[in-house]
Amino acid sequence: MTGLFITFEGGDGSGKSTQAELLASWLSEGGHTVVRSREPGGTDLGLELRKIVLHRRGHIAPRAEALIYAADRAHNIATKVRPAVERGEIVIQDRYLDSSVAYQGAGRVLDPDEVGNISLWATEGFMPDLTILLDLDESIGRERLDEARTTYDRLEAEKSDFHARVRQGYLALAAADPGRFLVLSATDSIGSLSAAIRTRVAELLPA
Amino acid sequence: MTGLFITFEGGDGSGKSTQAELLASWLSEGGHTVVRSREPGGTDLGLELRKIVLHRRGHIAPRAEALIYAADRAHNIATKVRPAVERGEIVIQDRYLDSSVAYQGAGRVLDPDEVGNISLWATEGFMPDLTILLDLDESIGRERLDEARTTYDRLEAEKSDFHARVRQGYLALAAADPGRFLVLSATDSIGSLSAAIRTRVAELLPA
Repeated sequence: MTGLFITFEGGDGSGKSTQAELLASWLSEGGHTVVRSREPGGTDLGLELRKIVLHRRGHIAPRAEALIYAADRAHNIATKVRPAVERGEIVIQDRYLDSSVAYQGAGRVLDPDEVGNISLWATEGFMPDLTILLDLDESIGRERLDEARTTYDRLEAEKSDFHARVRQGYLALAAADPGRFLVLSATDSIGSLSAAIRTRVAELLPA
Repeated sequence: MTGLFITFEGGDGSGKSTQAELLASWLSEGGHTVVRSREPGGTDLGLELRKIVLHRRGHIAPRAEALIYAADRAHNIATKVRPAVERGEIVIQDRYLDSSVAYQGAGRVLDPDEVGNISLWATEGFMPDLTILLDLDESIGRERLDEARTTYDRLEAEKSDFHARVRQGYLALAAADPGRFLVLSATDSIGSLSAAIRTRVAELLPA
């Protein structure tokens, strides 16, 4: 018996958490055991690392930052995600290695392939069965966050051209691996997105 | 003008800190600007990571642990060591990538070459001009620590066969790179070790 590992990707304000929650509820109601996770910060260790990469004052060297994300990922996969999938459960996670490649690779000074390879080493090549990319024009993502009046974290505070590069990085990843990705326009209604996601996930569930 | 990067390696109780301090004093008295560092924990960020890898309760996945050490290393080299060396200063550091290869590679379940490659990526291949290995039979290291009645940290508490494998890992690294390593027997007297180290370092100083 093998479970599923489903990840949500997209810029800030694209609606990942909302759709992940809706999918989790739907699967739970269908009798599946669902585990929610996120990166960074899906585990207790990860929460400590998340505090460092997202909320710590002061400069962090780019390679150090990428390695902290990879450490969080290694621990999350080894101790939480892989064991759950092996028990036959469905793991639904906000952000995974595509985030590192898109944010650290496309957005920063690091080589995206190298950043991806470190994530593959961290996780022993553990890949999602499905990755849902909520694609959003970065200026719309910005507006949504402004409306929510949330406190910006370090990454959210970066400039808009950074988010434009992140978006292009995501789309390049999806184009290179169409079998794994479901790309949806995040400006569609919550109900319409949720229906499209259910249809795709249903194909992956045991009959 | 280029400075020097000198690292000390060896098991716990081998006398690294003592010899690093003696060398630093001697170089300072000779008019050199000396910077002391250590891994993990050579920077403010590193101190937070050090707390996690050495003193946190609970299991840390082996790859996560190796990546946290690499993150500490990336930040230490990028923000502290490399800038100092480029200013012409002499950096003397307790532990560097050889520790990761010896401890995480030889001592744990990870491939030493892979662990070494991650450190090389973390530091953009920044290598020491000289690495002083204080080689010590692990049972003697144990006794020294018992006498000092120090509180054992997580790594020190590991079993003696672990330390035997670490020692063999170190000796293999030194044999593979004899130009960079000075291997000394840590059971020699403090004065005799210190003299041998000064002789070798003097060869590296500008005339």
